Amino acid sequence: MILEIALIDILPGTHAEFEAVVATAVETVLRPAAGFVSFELRHGVEHSDSYVLLIGWATLEDHTVGFRESERFVKWRELIGPFFAGAPRVDHWSKVFEVAR
Amino acid sequence: MILEIALIDILPGTHAEFEAVVATAVETVLRPAAGFVSFELRHGVEHSDSYVLLIGWATLEDHTVGFRESERFVKWRELIGPFFAGAPRVDHWSKVFEVAR
Repeated sequence: MILEIALIDILPGTHAEFEAVVATAVETVLRPAAGFVSFELRHGVEHSDSYVLLIGWATLEDHTVGFRESERFVKWRELIGPFFAGAPRVDHWSKVFEVAR
Repeated sequence: MILEIALIDILPGTHAEFEAVVATAVETVLRPAAGFVSFELRHGVEHSDSYVLLIGWATLEDHTVGFRESERFVKWRELIGPFFAGAPRVDHWSKVFEVAR
């Protein structure tokens, strides 16, 4: 599983609305996408206007080709883009290993 | 659960050794720490010399106080610090919501 990590700074004062729109966008646009595995929204402890999106994809191409080159991506950005305070930083990460307590 | 995300750039050509040392450091130093929940090491797809450490802690203070102010942190940095190509970027993130397929 490939993990997409997207760091997003949003406009101050829009937290509640942003979180609600992300929930809607995940359900309607992201969750039905081919290769979608998991989604987690987290809020910055040190940086109150920052969020991180952790998105699991079966393969890299499920995101970079299947999702990004589809109408789903246009709709996704239509929904959440208006909250961006700057360009998101998006990178992909392959698993080396994991450990639980 | 609080998620620590640490972005680390390492010295080129040290990937295999770095990954082995991280595995040792997790088992001997991190896993026994109070409040440790989970650890995941991932390797950059776009940036070959970058890694991300995703570390789950029961509370923020389990990391920032309990771990960082202990001898464990000294040992942790002794083990993995020599591979760093620069200062890691470390931030903490609180969960808003998550979704699985």
